Amino acid sequence: MEGPGHIVTFGESLIRLSPADHLRLQQTRVYESFFGGAEANVAVSLARFGLPVQYVTCLPDNDLGLACRHYLRQHGVGVDFIEMRGDRLGLYFLEVGSGHRPSRVIYDRTGSAFAAMDADAIPWREVFAGAGWFHWSGINPAVSAGAAAATAQAVASARQAGLVVSCDLNYRQRLWQWGAPPSAVMPDLVRQSDILVANAASPMLGLPDLPVGRNPAEAAAACTQLSGLFPNLRQIAMTCREVDPAGDQRYTAVMWQAGRLVTSPTFMIRHIVDRVGAGDAFMAGLIYGLVSYPDDPQRVVDFAAACAVFKHTIPGDANLAGREEIAQLLVTGNGYDIIR
Amino acid sequence: MEGPGHIVTFGESLIRLSPADHLRLQQTRVYESFFGGAEANVAVSLARFGLPVQYVTCLPDNDLGLACRHYLRQHGVGVDFIEMRGDRLGLYFLEVGSGHRPSRVIYDRTGSAFAAMDADAIPWREVFAGAGWFHWSGINPAVSAGAAAATAQAVASARQAGLVVSCDLNYRQRLWQWGAPPSAVMPDLVRQSDILVANAASPMLGLPDLPVGRNPAEAAAACTQLSGLFPNLRQIAMTCREVDPAGDQRYTAVMWQAGRLVTSPTFMIRHIVDRVGAGDAFMAGLIYGLVSYPDDPQRVVDFAAACAVFKHTIPGDANLAGREEIAQLLVTGNGYDIIR
Amino acid sequence: MEGPGHIVTFGESLIRLSPADHLRLQQTRVYESFFGGAEANVAVSLARFGLPVQYVTCLPDNDLGLACRHYLRQHGVGVDFIEMRGDRLGLYFLEVGSGHRPSRVIYDRTGSAFAAMDADAIPWREVFAGAGWFHWSGINPAVSAGAAAATAQAVASARQAGLVVSCDLNYRQRLWQWGAPPSAVMPDLVRQSDILVANAASPMLGLPDLPVGRNPAEAAAACTQLSGLFPNLRQIAMTCREVDPAGDQRYTAVMWQAGRLVTSPTFMIRHIVDRVGAGDAFMAGLIYGLVSYPDDPQRVVDFAAACAVFKHTIPGDANLAGREEIAQLLVTGNGYDIIR
Amino acid sequence: MEGPGHIVTFGESLIRLSPADHLRLQQTRVYESFFGGAEANVAVSLARFGLPVQYVTCLPDNDLGLACRHYLRQHGVGVDFIEMRGDRLGLYFLEVGSGHRPSRVIYDRTGSAFAAMDADAIPWREVFAGAGWFHWSGINPAVSAGAAAATAQAVASARQAGLVVSCDLNYRQRLWQWGAPPSAVMPDLVRQSDILVANAASPMLGLPDLPVGRNPAEAAAACTQLSGLFPNLRQIAMTCREVDPAGDQRYTAVMWQAGRLVTSPTFMIRHIVDRVGAGDAFMAGLIYGLVSYPDDPQRVVDFAAACAVFKHTIPGDANLAGREEIAQLLVTGNGYDIIR
Amino acid sequence: MEGPGHIVTFGESLIRLSPADHLRLQQTRVYESFFGGAEANVAVSLARFGLPVQYVTCLPDNDLGLACRHYLRQHGVGVDFIEMRGDRLGLYFLEVGSGHRPSRVIYDRTGSAFAAMDADAIPWREVFAGAGWFHWSGINPAVSAGAAAATAQAVASARQAGLVVSCDLNYRQRLWQWGAPPSAVMPDLVRQSDILVANAASPMLGLPDLPVGRNPAEAAAACTQLSGLFPNLRQIAMTCREVDPAGDQRYTAVMWQAGRLVTSPTFMIRHIVDRVGAGDAFMAGLIYGLVSYPDDPQRVVDFAAACAVFKHTIPGDANLAGREEIAQLLVTGNGYDIIR
Amino acid sequence: MEGPGHIVTFGESLIRLSPADHLRLQQTRVYESFFGGAEANVAVSLARFGLPVQYVTCLPDNDLGLACRHYLRQHGVGVDFIEMRGDRLGLYFLEVGSGHRPSRVIYDRTGSAFAAMDADAIPWREVFAGAGWFHWSGINPAVSAGAAAATAQAVASARQAGLVVSCDLNYRQRLWQWGAPPSAVMPDLVRQSDILVANAASPMLGLPDLPVGRNPAEAAAACTQLSGLFPNLRQIAMTCREVDPAGDQRYTAVMWQAGRLVTSPTFMIRHIVDRVGAGDAFMAGLIYGLVSYPDDPQRVVDFAAACAVFKHTIPGDANLAGREEIAQLLVTGNGYDIIR
Repeated sequence: MEGPGHIVTFGESLIRLSPADHLRLQQTRVYESFFGGAEANVAVSLARFGLPVQYVTCLPDNDLGLACRHYLRQHGVGVDFIEMRGDRLGLYFLEVGSGHRPSRVIYDRTGSAFAAMDADAIPWREVFAGAGWFHWSGINPAVSAGAAAATAQAVASARQAGLVVSCDLNYRQRLWQWGAPPSAVMPDLVRQSDILVANAASPMLGLPDLPVGRNPAEAAAACTQLSGLFPNLRQIAMTCREVDPAGDQRYTAVMWQAGRLVTSPTFMIRHIVDRVGAGDAFMAGLIYGLVSYPDDPQRVVDFAAACAVFKHTIPGDANLAGREEIAQLLVTGNGYDIIR
Repeated sequence: MEGPGHIVTFGESLIRLSPADHLRLQQTRVYESFFGGAEANVAVSLARFGLPVQYVTCLPDNDLGLACRHYLRQHGVGVDFIEMRGDRLGLYFLEVGSGHRPSRVIYDRTGSAFAAMDADAIPWREVFAGAGWFHWSGINPAVSAGAAAATAQAVASARQAGLVVSCDLNYRQRLWQWGAPPSAVMPDLVRQSDILVANAASPMLGLPDLPVGRNPAEAAAACTQLSGLFPNLRQIAMTCREVDPAGDQRYTAVMWQAGRLVTSPTFMIRHIVDRVGAGDAFMAGLIYGLVSYPDDPQRVVDFAAACAVFKHTIPGDANLAGREEIAQLLVTGNGYDIIR
Repeated sequence: MEGPGHIVTFGESLIRLSPADHLRLQQTRVYESFFGGAEANVAVSLARFGLPVQYVTCLPDNDLGLACRHYLRQHGVGVDFIEMRGDRLGLYFLEVGSGHRPSRVIYDRTGSAFAAMDADAIPWREVFAGAGWFHWSGINPAVSAGAAAATAQAVASARQAGLVVSCDLNYRQRLWQWGAPPSAVMPDLVRQSDILVANAASPMLGLPDLPVGRNPAEAAAACTQLSGLFPNLRQIAMTCREVDPAGDQRYTAVMWQAGRLVTSPTFMIRHIVDRVGAGDAFMAGLIYGLVSYPDDPQRVVDFAAACAVFKHTIPGDANLAGREEIAQLLVTGNGYDIIR
Repeated sequence: MEGPGHIVTFGESLIRLSPADHLRLQQTRVYESFFGGAEANVAVSLARFGLPVQYVTCLPDNDLGLACRHYLRQHGVGVDFIEMRGDRLGLYFLEVGSGHRPSRVIYDRTGSAFAAMDADAIPWREVFAGAGWFHWSGINPAVSAGAAAATAQAVASARQAGLVVSCDLNYRQRLWQWGAPPSAVMPDLVRQSDILVANAASPMLGLPDLPVGRNPAEAAAACTQLSGLFPNLRQIAMTCREVDPAGDQRYTAVMWQAGRLVTSPTFMIRHIVDRVGAGDAFMAGLIYGLVSYPDDPQRVVDFAAACAVFKHTIPGDANLAGREEIAQLLVTGNGYDIIR
Repeated sequence: MEGPGHIVTFGESLIRLSPADHLRLQQTRVYESFFGGAEANVAVSLARFGLPVQYVTCLPDNDLGLACRHYLRQHGVGVDFIEMRGDRLGLYFLEVGSGHRPSRVIYDRTGSAFAAMDADAIPWREVFAGAGWFHWSGINPAVSAGAAAATAQAVASARQAGLVVSCDLNYRQRLWQWGAPPSAVMPDLVRQSDILVANAASPMLGLPDLPVGRNPAEAAAACTQLSGLFPNLRQIAMTCREVDPAGDQRYTAVMWQAGRLVTSPTFMIRHIVDRVGAGDAFMAGLIYGLVSYPDDPQRVVDFAAACAVFKHTIPGDANLAGREEIAQLLVTGNGYDIIR
Repeated sequence: MEGPGHIVTFGESLIRLSPADHLRLQQTRVYESFFGGAEANVAVSLARFGLPVQYVTCLPDNDLGLACRHYLRQHGVGVDFIEMRGDRLGLYFLEVGSGHRPSRVIYDRTGSAFAAMDADAIPWREVFAGAGWFHWSGINPAVSAGAAAATAQAVASARQAGLVVSCDLNYRQRLWQWGAPPSAVMPDLVRQSDILVANAASPMLGLPDLPVGRNPAEAAAACTQLSGLFPNLRQIAMTCREVDPAGDQRYTAVMWQAGRLVTSPTFMIRHIVDRVGAGDAFMAGLIYGLVSYPDDPQRVVDFAAACAVFKHTIPGDANLAGREEIAQLLVTGNGYDIIR
């Protein structure tokens, strides 16, 4: 077990299956696979940054569940509280687009070990012993009623145990099939959290009038507005991608903290190896920054934004980057070199 | 649509995902995929032998379901009665063993489009118009209560429409999770069929005393015994694999017809490319033989056994063989040559 | 067979063999293959858009010819009139360039089943029964004297049968080795057609003074001029690629119809997965548009241009796109997103 | 850290690089890699059998060393005492033979982080705190003078700390380049060990008259003779491969314990996926057996032999098998089945 | 240029295209390629054995022809007399069988640069300056009338220049399409040769009563009979494969020399990596043996047989073996070991 | 051997091992390999341009050394003076970055056959017989004291034999571990050379005040300054990459000759297949240009710059381009087309 102050993340793990070389799903006979899941990605990135982290989930007790568990262990994530039970590991098929063709996801996660969880599946008191931080995302309550109930228990327990609680809204339009809409579930949970990544806050929190946040100014406005609505939040962050007709993306992050807004540099993203997990990389960067530079919000948002940008260069769902690489990116502003 | 006398098969389609080069599931990052499913395999083999065939199933209306449909069409199978609905395509993960390590299957087919079918999902009257033969297997009722009910309707409708009905018992120990045991469902359906491939008849039909059929003599005894118990059956066939300590397999098929037993040559199988689907290849060979050589049971069982043997040389679930190749194998008795 | 009004396309099918990952032909030991051929590509795209289509060609009666036939069937193309005869399937080797290195093609199609065809190889009367549209391209008469003669018969028969006839000039400098230059063959055939894609009209039709069409204005001028020279043509279209020094391409299509010129939006193409077949995608989009929106030439040219742009994102020769994807591209103007 | 009684193994880790599909080194452009090293393989197998184990080595502090460390962690091996220092990770190139062509190894391990170790590189007292078993092999002192000295310290410390000490002689003719011959180093170390796998004892221990052990009878004689020469040894085991002209191998293990000889079943090995690491699999099986069934030497040698046989079916250097699979093999005697 | 006494081989080079992993041609999207051609294979093997050798052929002057030329140069074959002209490089598609499925070849070599050659395409006087040996095979005259005429010129020139002339009959049923049957062409050319590999002599030389040579005794009889019919021949060799029902092959070679018959050991071949080119490996071994051990026919036939057996273990068409490996095989009689 | 006037290059050869598809070293199980080494790359490019060239190095006498030797021979490089001795072939692992992630090299070349060379390892008099040009780079003396001494002998011998001597400074920060800093070794060797590629001249020649050369103007200033300090130099060239925030590179070369400065066009590089070896491609282009167009410095620098730009499109270390392709690039200014 980790020492006092370690971080706990909780969520569903999935296998991603993708055709190689931009083949369409209808063309491929071969799939490349990666393990993913938003909170698992956050855990992996934090472990690689050197922070102690435990990841909590349910995995089926078969070779796929074990392979997922081993993957997490390989990257230094604590797996002491992973429950090995349930019938299947969730999957998603990812057709990787390019240029004018968007990437497309087919979810196949219904009935997964995580979705089949009931409210008190996880012994939260035990899990949180000695922990200092709890991170969850809006995907958890989107998956099933049971997962939503377990998430609610988790947030309440974390709060009770005095942990810092962070949440990434992580809107996924195609989930939320189990009955309740996000706006019926999320606001209460966000009210028990300290830190929020607030992209798509409008549908997730039932705030139709909130600015969408397509550019830094709008995002700043949205963060400020949210700080009024959720006075419990200590930090509120959003990220923006501004895309030009040829597909170049201008990536910027904004963070509100104690009435002050800080904005990261704008990065120009042109060549993308793998976009999936950029938001999780941002989230991990944010947590790392808030833990490491609690008094320097500018450094926090810069580090988090650089994490998201760096993730675009790495195959798979997790940001397998080191701290020094992120720091280096903030110095040079671009890559495109050979270090030899 | 096919002309009068075409064959209809009905069952579930699955994607198989396998690591390459005998890697274990816990070692792989890449999966090779094939479409399979017992009755789909039978349909593909029959189409390649030149018989008109329609395959009936439910597939999800997404890129995976469409890819499966296109695969069937590619090989000449009629897809006019495939229902595009439901949530997911069933999967199975196949770890390919070798030598002293058996192959292992992880099924992930719960909640598939096929399993979610209800009793009257398929317009059987329409499907059977102009058809002459209906084939199903014991996997169908193993999958879910709905699929079992639909299968019962299918068999009854086929019988009513005057079709020849063939059944492969296809025992799968890990299925049959929905409530009823096979012995509560299968006997009645078999009683409405004309032709039976009877491997594992003991658990499937609730006949604990039936010989298991590990060698041709035992198989012959079992067939004879079954002919007494199910007097409706016109042909009863079984296949045996006798394995020596180094893994060589002696493969023989036996068929009972009208009180007479015929036995195929025994083939020695040493090098296996892909064993999955050998039973379906046998089934297709049996149907092809019964249609083509109705008066020559020896030729029928020889052809069917050679189909199963040939299948071991072909990657994937279906026996992508031509009639001439099977005929050639029966002449030469082995391969190991270069035709140039 | 398809119902009245289906489309017939006629041309040569080829196997493309390419090294992966931008390797040069002199570096590779492995080739990726795709089936292609201009008119086959048009047929596949139309079938995927939901229009009934028959593709006519000659294929050798071996496993390669059959694999090609099955490929077409897989994508829903009718193969009822494919003649299985001749010695070989044409090939081409494609070295895929990048950046400052152009892609290079080595044709190996001499003596193919298609090239060996004689004038009356195809029973056109039978083929055109119930058909409404015939499409051919300038590659057919470029291949051999026999193919040229068969094409002439096809065009004449189609005209006689009252079909709409469309032609893509499809200039290939390295073909036309059999004796006649294009300008001796094409003008007469174009005079019997209704719709023309007119890129490279100058060498193909022997019109040295025609504007080349490097930009939309020039293309418009060329279309107008052609409309005067070939008054039989109801629609004349051209496409332009304007390339900047870093390789970005600005892609625009122009169409003349009944004295009116319409111009598509200009798409910026930066990241190319596979450029081969973009012209065929355009052609299929044009046919689909003219069939579906006969009174809206702007919509036609927009749809066709978007097809060509979308094709750049798909590996292989054919535009494996759905109608909705093309429609979506016209709404958003770019991709670069994840649909999940 | 592990609890009291855990196992410690110590040795060099290497990257194996192999061409795929039996290509020769002079033909390949692509290498498959696995991490290996005799004692690392033993550790991985023990961890997968569920025993607590720490692996001690030196790895360079670069991405290759880290990847190796992560690989061990992935499979559940403790990495708390791995020293991250030195210049390079040792490599070996393995050309995988087949049939009449033997496999060939090119070692490239000179100057590795492990070889560059000096006598007191490892804090053995700390390492052995709470441990119950120490395993080393004859490869360690073969690598360099420093590694030999460190091994001597390790064995002495382990003995002093009261641990059980096991040794696999692991003769490698091409190593031992640093000065001393094996017979000058090994006997003294073996005299401080409790358990010995004694293949190639003749060159390793300087006993020219010892039977080589090509068959079980000879192996038994050699074990008995060794028990007289090294009265400290509690268990002495040897394995034999008897190869017939077609390459089938008859594999048998023999163990001497307290004056009694036990012999495993003889396994017929015909199809080999990967032979490397079979000896390490045997060693791990032996340790597992001695820990788990201390009073049943027959069960120990059977389990160990089955481990070695099973390893031939798994790609890579380590025996990624579970206990149950080994137990199952001992029951069925062969594989060649599909578990579904 | 090589010194006096070098060897010249003459024939057609081809690209082989094969699906991987035993996929059928109708299943694959990827082809592995190797350069081959009987006489090129002989040249490569001789060069790797250390003998100076020039290979004469025609190759198209494109990237494929150049890649083939570079391949030969890579392995040390002299390419000074390769003519770069003609339209295409011949191809063949090889579907690799296994077990009961034979391998199948689709030739696509009509119209190749070699086939298009005319009688005096090669400046034989220049080519043979300083050479000591000329090797050709029965494939050359099978390809086209021009190639047959050029071969006749080559044999006559070689004889005139006093070279040793060797011939491998190399029967290919599917070639010989240009008009003359083999029996009309070959006998005269064989009469001008000194050494003959005589498999399939019956159809190639028009000798219907000659024993076929399925076992060593029959082969010996055939060689003896041929020595009477062709008294010019100094050595006549044949090879036999006796296949058992499980596909194991017993491989033996027989050679007649000056009235004496020598027989190689019989090798048991069970696991085959690639059978293509085994005959060419035998031929190269025979030439190497006759050059190196002119007074020891037993050693010659043993070496040649071992070359053929060893070739079964190497991917591709050529026997990339060293002399020492062949010698080693003759000592150990089998492989199945790891040299480390 | 080559005729009078051939070129000799001297340096170390390495195997490059890279993960595919931008995977990180910690993610990959498969490595792609290429042979490289600065001076070997120059030799390969010159041989493909049609100039006679011998490459001098030491390679280990194992399958890797032989494979490297064969690779050079394949591309037409003379290998007559390669010494087959020493223990190992140097390696480097290349993690290929993308976008904001730089590529990273792990060198593993210590103790290589080249590094282990002593001062008089190469018989330079023999090597230089009939040669006209000697090329070396600053990597040679960076590797080891022995290699530095051998390089000094080479340069002195070449000068004495009246050869033109060219040098590429080729700064590699991580080498130079053997004792002397570059500034203690290089100036004297540069003083004996005629042509210099002078990137990173500041650290290599100990000139802290020299302009770094980030843009053409600075580069021109540096060249001019160097021409004063090293009056022996007849040509001094530098190349600049100006990178914008999205990673596009503007590539320009500058050359000083006899007091005159010439500047190449500026190429915009956006899509990079493989950047390694661009400097070597430039060097080969410079040598080719100086040999072919001795009176046209503008043509020389244009050709050399186009070589470097073209190299970015080719996988591997060497510029496998033909002269005509480079000439074509100078005409069109970009690629992005299909030549068919």
